[in-house]
Amino acid sequence: MKPKSIAIIGLGLMGGSLAAACRKKFSGTKIIGITRNRAALRTALKKKWVHQAAPDLKRGVQSADLIVLCTPVNTLKPLLQQIDRFARRGTLVTDAGSVKSEIVSWAGKRKFKNITFVGAHPMTGSHERGIEAANPDIYRKGFTFVTRTAKTQRAAFTKVKDFWKKISPRVVEITPEAHDIITSQISHVPHLIAACLVLAADPKSLPFAGPGFIDATRIAQGHPSVWLPIFIANRKAVLKAVSGFEKKLSIFKKALSGAGSGQARFLEKILAQAGQERAQISPLK
Amino acid sequence: MKPKSIAIIGLGLMGGSLAAACRKKFSGTKIIGITRNRAALRTALKKKWVHQAAPDLKRGVQSADLIVLCTPVNTLKPLLQQIDRFARRGTLVTDAGSVKSEIVSWAGKRKFKNITFVGAHPMTGSHERGIEAANPDIYRKGFTFVTRTAKTQRAAFTKVKDFWKKISPRVVEITPEAHDIITSQISHVPHLIAACLVLAADPKSLPFAGPGFIDATRIAQGHPSVWLPIFIANRKAVLKAVSGFEKKLSIFKKALSGAGSGQARFLEKILAQAGQERAQISPLK
Repeated sequence: MKPKSIAIIGLGLMGGSLAAACRKKFSGTKIIGITRNRAALRTALKKKWVHQAAPDLKRGVQSADLIVLCTPVNTLKPLLQQIDRFARRGTLVTDAGSVKSEIVSWAGKRKFKNITFVGAHPMTGSHERGIEAANPDIYRKGFTFVTRTAKTQRAAFTKVKDFWKKISPRVVEITPEAHDIITSQISHVPHLIAACLVLAADPKSLPFAGPGFIDATRIAQGHPSVWLPIFIANRKAVLKAVSGFEKKLSIFKKALSGAGSGQARFLEKILAQAGQERAQISPLK
Repeated sequence: MKPKSIAIIGLGLMGGSLAAACRKKFSGTKIIGITRNRAALRTALKKKWVHQAAPDLKRGVQSADLIVLCTPVNTLKPLLQQIDRFARRGTLVTDAGSVKSEIVSWAGKRKFKNITFVGAHPMTGSHERGIEAANPDIYRKGFTFVTRTAKTQRAAFTKVKDFWKKISPRVVEITPEAHDIITSQISHVPHLIAACLVLAADPKSLPFAGPGFIDATRIAQGHPSVWLPIFIANRKAVLKAVSGFEKKLSIFKKALSGAGSGQARFLEKILAQAGQERAQISPLK
């Protein structure tokens, strides 16, 4: 599928970078940027990341073959309802949201008139936000999950998957539920934990923080307007992953509270295991 | 004080880098590297980071004015005892260990014949280890704590502090107890937490980890031979800091378990607070 026109809703870090990547990868396709943020529209036009800047949802979506939502997860439901009113019949819609079960299951139950929604989640970005932090390469560095359920329309799924494949070299099909468990473990809970590390340290200790603490807590700077909706939408999986984390922490605590050499050997073993598992993860290029 | 001769015991990341930094900063001073690791001795000689490589403690320390211990914290007590036997009368000894109360209080109670010990902790390094990872600049990037108690000899303290000032631009006087509380919060507990994050994630989730998880867990790769002795030596402060961390985590859990908008606003507030506190930490140059 080569769309004649792609509309991107939301021109922050994710949407701005996506517009830039689409301009690179879909030559001849019209890229429409939609947001109420006039400064972001101006930037997107100036950088030639979009052909058309639309402050108005209706005008922006009505000529698109494919629409990509790049706004916080709590905005997706009302946006899908509005888009369905304004889009042409047969328009494909996908998204870049970090939580998938809630929105995919909700969309699966709706009778949309005009649109077909296939949820996706490109695992990329940073703690920064806004189109100033955007660049066309961020999508090349991470995995992109495209969700599939028993209700997913095969043709729409294939087209949406093909779209993401052009943008991101590592596309993975997944159920929304499996996606939300994975992201709770490797993204959402690590974010909560980073915030707790910052809050638990005495403010007087923080100025002495070295590169270890700085790296460990970088993600705590993610903006609450992005992260609060993620935690709420993925509450169930997040709370479960927190429990799993607490179990590991209590193992460390117990081993550390005991004074015996057996406990020391056990502690050494689990530290070594964590180090080895971590060392096997390589940053994506 | 300009020492005629500095002996560095342990030529790993910390000791190797210190030797290199001393060569830069103390021209005319003889730098002696002491370790049983013959390969590290060869590397240190080849890189001209040491003038003399000593595989033997006795021969290495007997001509030094200042000795710096750069070995894991569990090796410090036996090393101090041996050094006291071999060193000349009046030799100053400092260290680079990550835990201070235990060793400083132990050394304060000993009647050393020949040496005076002033504990220090340069807050630098990385998860890497070995002289291959060493470089002369690591000490310039972090704070160096030099410990002082009621028992500390003023002249020795001043000389040791002056030594560290030449190597590290940010030297801070501190009590061993305050040091251990700070490092428990910004170094030791973050390390435990990073290990728990890795261990709590399903191994099948780990390959999807993006830059957020990768940065948050980098320190989990620190070697257990370094870190286990740190946790054991600083057990009390670490367990207390873990409790403080758990309190923050339980606040998040409680807010997330509730469904009300009041809880959502509260969650947003604490996420914002963590982000702001973290944003105020700037990496040292």
